[in-house]
Amino acid sequence: MLPRLDPVVHGDWTPGAPLSRDQTERFERDGFVVLHDLFTAQEIAALQASATRLIADPGALDARTVISEPGVDEVRSIFMIHRQNALMERLARDERLAGIARFILDDEVYLHQSRLNYKPGFVGREFYWHSDFETWHVEDGMPRMRSLSMSVLLAPNTATNGPLMLIPGSHRSYCACAGETPEEHYLASLRKQEYGVPDTVTLAGLAAEGGIAAPTGEAGTVVVFDCNVMHGSNGNITPFPRANAFFVYNAVSNRLTAPFGVPQPRPEFVAARQGTHALPRPGSTLLETARSSQVA
Amino acid sequence: MLPRLDPVVHGDWTPGAPLSRDQTERFERDGFVVLHDLFTAQEIAALQASATRLIADPGALDARTVISEPGVDEVRSIFMIHRQNALMERLARDERLAGIARFILDDEVYLHQSRLNYKPGFVGREFYWHSDFETWHVEDGMPRMRSLSMSVLLAPNTATNGPLMLIPGSHRSYCACAGETPEEHYLASLRKQEYGVPDTVTLAGLAAEGGIAAPTGEAGTVVVFDCNVMHGSNGNITPFPRANAFFVYNAVSNRLTAPFGVPQPRPEFVAARQGTHALPRPGSTLLETARSSQVA
Repeated sequence: MLPRLDPVVHGDWTPGAPLSRDQTERFERDGFVVLHDLFTAQEIAALQASATRLIADPGALDARTVISEPGVDEVRSIFMIHRQNALMERLARDERLAGIARFILDDEVYLHQSRLNYKPGFVGREFYWHSDFETWHVEDGMPRMRSLSMSVLLAPNTATNGPLMLIPGSHRSYCACAGETPEEHYLASLRKQEYGVPDTVTLAGLAAEGGIAAPTGEAGTVVVFDCNVMHGSNGNITPFPRANAFFVYNAVSNRLTAPFGVPQPRPEFVAARQGTHALPRPGSTLLETARSSQVA
Repeated sequence: MLPRLDPVVHGDWTPGAPLSRDQTERFERDGFVVLHDLFTAQEIAALQASATRLIADPGALDARTVISEPGVDEVRSIFMIHRQNALMERLARDERLAGIARFILDDEVYLHQSRLNYKPGFVGREFYWHSDFETWHVEDGMPRMRSLSMSVLLAPNTATNGPLMLIPGSHRSYCACAGETPEEHYLASLRKQEYGVPDTVTLAGLAAEGGIAAPTGEAGTVVVFDCNVMHGSNGNITPFPRANAFFVYNAVSNRLTAPFGVPQPRPEFVAARQGTHALPRPGSTLLETARSSQVA
């Protein structure tokens, strides 16, 4: 366990910032902040419809980007949704999300990774504790802690359907994980993480100090979390599936270099090396994009 | 799905009843009720110490009664604790528990089954949805719905450590499960339930109607639930283990007969056929028993 060297909130808060002072301070302290009511009911419905279409027809997608549940023939994640779906690309660019990323990271941003996560009812499996940065640094060559994730809930997150859990404050330490990372580890880890996970003593210590938060919220809720906060989720035996669109924003000044711990970097669809120009501002509203992409 | 034929609360509420009128009505309506502050801190500490000793030395117990997590070398359940531990036997007889059972079932009661459940941190597995009565009827020959369970929490149940989930109102229908029950099914089902589980359409319907309750509470909290309420629990990746002492009280008028769905009844340690005399009132307090059993 090493103390964090990089800032959490890279920018300075001003009254014009896209987060309130309180939200900014909570992000700094806890490593995450939950935003409600960013989107209209119509926008949420359009996003849900897009997600449903993506999951309903995985054959239409780049096969490598479609990941199934371990042992179950159901889609767990679809990667690179911002290059496979016009509305998801538009969502990623939305000022309500990208504007917050630019403020916290104090830089122009691009998408390091995007995906649609789907945790089916009855058989949804757990996702064990991990800090994203550990993987992004070791396997992808991300230099510094200057990136963050946003999870846009597309179904209600309740206390019982396996919501995202985070350990508040855990983003202030870097937890170097024991053991060598096997080659092409990502192929298995996208299904079930077994390497690069923290040991139980470390986790127990972090949770004893910070507790465990499991934000709940209706569809449309956005969880913004730091690249180094420890998070995971329990399984889901309830009938209520869980889905979210997930975007990783990285500062353009923090583009990937050679991996720090493995010889071969992971492929483009999990760790962008091309298309890392600053994310452009959108030219149309989310609903306009929804309408035109449905016609197309 | 068949409508329930038997009463839920068999007795008539009077001001002298061990549950308030409101608690009694909630048990009738939801199929469960949660009781806080029944035990003193000293009593809870004594019960926890007993549980810790049981789990720490499973070799001292009847080997058949010790059940491990699937794929993990950790104890999941210890059955028949009321015959293997003096304090657990005393707890089962406690008027604060047995008195409620006698009131709801309107009869003298005995223990159909008892166990200590332990869901370890990090690797605690889910327990899929089931109604106990289905198994007790088909495999054990329990004639009617005139029994109930009590789970005495020995560690905090939080929203995130895989707490017991129940579907309120599900106790009003009998869900006959499809398929034959394999012989000696209980040996596997104590680890992981695969037969005798309701289909997903039925579960989704029940949950859409009643929602899902996941009572939380400190150690010492007691969840009293009807024999026919649908319940289960998610896995637990948090560092916080979960433990409870679990007692099934059956009305003496509802003693087991031949099983209704399998040729061979399950063994004594999961379904009592001997020792089904009315549970006697205790002759000493819980703490007295704790002290004398520690000396012994």
